[in-house]
Amino acid sequence: MAARRKVIIVGAGFGGLQCAQALIGKPVDVLLIDDRNYHLFTPLLYQVASCLLAPSEIATPLRTLFRHAPNVRYRQGRVVRVDTDAKLLALADDDVVAYDTLVLATGSTTNYYGKSDVEQQALGLKDLGEALRLRNHVLTCLERAVIEPEGDDRRRHLTFCVVGGGPTGVEYAGALAELVRLVLPREYPELDRRDVRIVLVEGTDRLLPAFTPRLSAYAKKTLERLGVEVRCNSLVASADDRSVTLVDGTHLATYSMVWAAGVQPADPLDQPPAGPSGRVAVDDHLRAVGVDDVYALGDVAAGHDRKGATLPMLATPAMQEGRYVAREIAEGPLAKPFRYRNRGTLATVGRSAAVGKIGPLQFTGFIGWVVWLTVHLYYLIGFGNRVRVLARWAYYYARLERPVRIIVRADERS
Amino acid sequence: MAARRKVIIVGAGFGGLQCAQALIGKPVDVLLIDDRNYHLFTPLLYQVASCLLAPSEIATPLRTLFRHAPNVRYRQGRVVRVDTDAKLLALADDDVVAYDTLVLATGSTTNYYGKSDVEQQALGLKDLGEALRLRNHVLTCLERAVIEPEGDDRRRHLTFCVVGGGPTGVEYAGALAELVRLVLPREYPELDRRDVRIVLVEGTDRLLPAFTPRLSAYAKKTLERLGVEVRCNSLVASADDRSVTLVDGTHLATYSMVWAAGVQPADPLDQPPAGPSGRVAVDDHLRAVGVDDVYALGDVAAGHDRKGATLPMLATPAMQEGRYVAREIAEGPLAKPFRYRNRGTLATVGRSAAVGKIGPLQFTGFIGWVVWLTVHLYYLIGFGNRVRVLARWAYYYARLERPVRIIVRADERS
Repeated sequence: MAARRKVIIVGAGFGGLQCAQALIGKPVDVLLIDDRNYHLFTPLLYQVASCLLAPSEIATPLRTLFRHAPNVRYRQGRVVRVDTDAKLLALADDDVVAYDTLVLATGSTTNYYGKSDVEQQALGLKDLGEALRLRNHVLTCLERAVIEPEGDDRRRHLTFCVVGGGPTGVEYAGALAELVRLVLPREYPELDRRDVRIVLVEGTDRLLPAFTPRLSAYAKKTLERLGVEVRCNSLVASADDRSVTLVDGTHLATYSMVWAAGVQPADPLDQPPAGPSGRVAVDDHLRAVGVDDVYALGDVAAGHDRKGATLPMLATPAMQEGRYVAREIAEGPLAKPFRYRNRGTLATVGRSAAVGKIGPLQFTGFIGWVVWLTVHLYYLIGFGNRVRVLARWAYYYARLERPVRIIVRADERS
Repeated sequence: MAARRKVIIVGAGFGGLQCAQALIGKPVDVLLIDDRNYHLFTPLLYQVASCLLAPSEIATPLRTLFRHAPNVRYRQGRVVRVDTDAKLLALADDDVVAYDTLVLATGSTTNYYGKSDVEQQALGLKDLGEALRLRNHVLTCLERAVIEPEGDDRRRHLTFCVVGGGPTGVEYAGALAELVRLVLPREYPELDRRDVRIVLVEGTDRLLPAFTPRLSAYAKKTLERLGVEVRCNSLVASADDRSVTLVDGTHLATYSMVWAAGVQPADPLDQPPAGPSGRVAVDDHLRAVGVDDVYALGDVAAGHDRKGATLPMLATPAMQEGRYVAREIAEGPLAKPFRYRNRGTLATVGRSAAVGKIGPLQFTGFIGWVVWLTVHLYYLIGFGNRVRVLARWAYYYARLERPVRIIVRADERS
């Protein structure tokens, strides 16, 4: 048997996973490399942080996904260097692997915009470990507030500053407000709900800037009805372990700053040459510019639409790019360049409201939420996960529970 | 309204929880103190460690359990000192709380028998954090084995030494063997199942010494059929980060020593005076000997049966003692002393076999497993948990899955 082309895909997020799945059964050998042994359904990550879902309900082991795919192998590892001349990848465990074709799908990391004090204090919301840390943190704040005598320090434990008015910030702020509304009156008789303060800070003049102004206004109104204080045209100036200061001088006494203010491409390579904003420059076939046999897609790549505008760092473009690159690899150079089809955007705002735009249609409220739930269940990987998450939602809806409210860490020896 | 008697229960394990629940609605104010904000159903902990159940399926938030109990409050905290003269408890957060009646239900911790090298290397299996650490460790060993070239170091990653042939060791060894049997052939084509070695080390001459010899023999045969190497009359002499040495000189090359060899009472007090084996001495009304208004129950107390034999450190005696102490507190000194009723013992061995003794009846095999499942679902706290765990088992049974196979830690900043 002739040696088959060896394709290495780095990153098992939405883009890398779609690419690997579309290459199942094709005449290439695929090695999928990711430091995490699971695919994470990030759109529901804020639900883990707010105690509604368990981690395993939004994470599927990669080996399970490729169980019946003899030409796709998984390898746990972190890529630290790429030699595009020799076509070699160096991994953090000192191993070196060779590729014929490389697909960079390394995604993005949280962007702290160079503010080290902010990075030091912030609670991120970008991976499962951070979501669990945030869950533990919020539950511990509630327990500490019970113990503190009434006054400043109790209120400090009950003040939560969420930074970033994009979908992640809006969804988490809404879910946190629901958590407080549902759980506090029933289970924390020692606390007064009015002592809880949730402040959502957004730099531009409206929430969800990627949506239409009408949907932004709806999101703001809904969050305010849930008790969230929305501050647009506002930025974090500095932070320490007891407070957050905004650029207008506002001082928030809090132990909790949740950072959902932006992401940056996670390019571990410094090569191929990164385009503006650090994303890898790609041509209209998603080939990295200036190097051979390297594709880049998703958040790490600067793919563009037909008007030349850079695509947003979202799951949908990454998935479309992943499928395109797989076809390009399996069927040789395609006649047609990559074309992004914008199918719409959705975000939840609290328990049973969502905003969304699909084609010409705009959704709000309960209808929006049903659309949101349907789309997310459809894209959630794994039949078992879909059933469990749907069951959890039904149970939650009927009982108004937040079942996953346990403070637990994988015990690390000191 | 007259000041009501203030009862403090330290520890929300089986004994403390039963005591608190039996005091709901009684004319006393109960404060339940535990560092963990949940009740943990420890009999199924090995299933979390072996990827079948998610943590939240065996842990229920304490505040949820006492939501409708106005006379029971929960407080997160760790007791560091008791002043039985002044009737005060000092907590790790420097707070001090006063009691009229104290119930010590602090349970037990892992016993390393003073072997610091063993304690350093061992993977415990006593709380959720340890179970998650063990799950992460085993999954990481499998991923490392894939990367290692064939040979000694690959086999070292695939060798697992389980120490202790009581229910925990037997159940975990069986579950680990099942995990390997189910998952390796389908999802780790790079590995040969015959390279995996699971060694179960027990100090006495048979597994499950608390069961009858017939059930011990059945457990051994079943584990051996699953591929577990059972070594009775054997003890760990020493351990380092690459191996375990037994007292007979056997040297096991392994990164994994799971310690299920015993527990010791978790008495944070040094007072009231501890009985033999460190358990608090109690009279036949479970009052701590030599101090006023202090009860002790469960693993931390040396309760005894009517023949004077000290009760085993198990859930059943703790639960009976918890209910007895609650009655004693609510109804004044009872005429009848505490009497333990031995209702039997059960342990699973692999996927669909269990051994057990209930009254005069002995169970083995599938029947034993059905009895085991029924009893455990009955005692599992929370309707939602019962439904989820049963659903998980049905799914698992039909699909032979180990769904919770993700490596994840609550992200701690360094």
